[in-house]
Amino acid sequence: MGREEIHEFSRLEREALYKTIFSRRDVREQFKSDSIPEEVLSRILTAAHHAPSVGFMQPWNFILVISEKVKQKVYDGFIKAHNKATDLFEGKKRDAYQKLKLEGILESPVNLCITCDRERSGPVVLGRTSMKDMDLYSSVCAVQNLWLAARAEGLGVGWVSIIEQDDLQDALGIPRKIIPIAYLCIGYVSHFNPKPDLESADWLKRQNLNDLIYFDQWEQKHTEESSALRDAIESNKKLVDQYFVPDKQKAKGAV
Amino acid sequence: MGREEIHEFSRLEREALYKTIFSRRDVREQFKSDSIPEEVLSRILTAAHHAPSVGFMQPWNFILVISEKVKQKVYDGFIKAHNKATDLFEGKKRDAYQKLKLEGILESPVNLCITCDRERSGPVVLGRTSMKDMDLYSSVCAVQNLWLAARAEGLGVGWVSIIEQDDLQDALGIPRKIIPIAYLCIGYVSHFNPKPDLESADWLKRQNLNDLIYFDQWEQKHTEESSALRDAIESNKKLVDQYFVPDKQKAKGAV
Repeated sequence: MGREEIHEFSRLEREALYKTIFSRRDVREQFKSDSIPEEVLSRILTAAHHAPSVGFMQPWNFILVISEKVKQKVYDGFIKAHNKATDLFEGKKRDAYQKLKLEGILESPVNLCITCDRERSGPVVLGRTSMKDMDLYSSVCAVQNLWLAARAEGLGVGWVSIIEQDDLQDALGIPRKIIPIAYLCIGYVSHFNPKPDLESADWLKRQNLNDLIYFDQWEQKHTEESSALRDAIESNKKLVDQYFVPDKQKAKGAV
Repeated sequence: MGREEIHEFSRLEREALYKTIFSRRDVREQFKSDSIPEEVLSRILTAAHHAPSVGFMQPWNFILVISEKVKQKVYDGFIKAHNKATDLFEGKKRDAYQKLKLEGILESPVNLCITCDRERSGPVVLGRTSMKDMDLYSSVCAVQNLWLAARAEGLGVGWVSIIEQDDLQDALGIPRKIIPIAYLCIGYVSHFNPKPDLESADWLKRQNLNDLIYFDQWEQKHTEESSALRDAIESNKKLVDQYFVPDKQKAKGAV
């Protein structure tokens, strides 16, 4: 058996990946307190650890937060930042902001902080000589890997970003030079919503993908090759919605 | 049928996601010139567009680079930055660096720049009031979604980060206020390597995941709950390797 064959994906496998991507949600409200088996937790952490990293530096650490006391400290930090943020919105937007539930720190059984150690592999990092934030981006890729793995395991994940970096560092004893990239709430959920919460709440609309695509140059919307791709993108809108209808209906219009 | 049932994943679907994550590679050498069908390209772009984004701001654009002339400009920028970077490494590391192939700009049929428009949804962004880089991180999540979708489609992706930001902006006509997050080379490949290139080249070793995990506080390695998880992580090492043996053997030790 050749190398290529081993690495081929079946249609079902491809579909599974798209199902994961299109049904992943930022979960804040639907956490159940059920504990997460170690095997499951170990798999999603292993997925995170296999993210790409610049110069193979693997700059991440994973701080699992189980202690109620530590969670409470993080929650206090969230409340402080959230109150401050509320003042930045005006009029109707402020009312809407105040109605949103934006974290599940105390309800989710496991919280996880993914960090970036910028000095992990010495002062010169292959691939980071021009673009200095590549190490931060590597840790973000670890977040996204974990998020997708969690989705496939039936776990909800919510990313809490409304907290000052130093408050988060203090709550978890993280040295100042280590950057906390993401604070995640993880747990089983009663359900996954069909759309992102902020889309359902009319906070902002899903943008039209075709409006975001350029060819060869910024703002160049049309070239010889562009119209076939734009048509394909247009018909792909169905592809996303199919993951929210029962399996029997779904079979008709598969990826 | 309840909502939960609709969103459940089968064991096969979970396995497909892990297969994608563990067999994804940063490809530089193995590109084939075969063109990529529009349907496939549209699916991986749709996957990118369904990444999480802070405050649902969807700050990304996608510049598809097909023109040889534009690719050449980017390649010139790479060469300039690469030569400069070479001087930063010393002794054996410099020799090793010079031997590595670090991009596939001209060989891959499609290049793609994913950007971040920091002003996409106005001055105040929900969730970015404390952590200002959350918008950049959102675009990185789009990169990782696309990368995984590409892997499941049998497409290799290589992230080129050895180029100055302003050279990349100039080559693609990107305004200074728009941040290019990733410049990706995309194409079918002769094969996917079993390990990351930099691991095979002994540039750096894969770290032991258990060494990167803390509990409740930075550098706290042991708590009541920790040993069961550490054991589970240890036995998961096999999980990763199984994706590089033929299917018949694989069936024995599935996820």
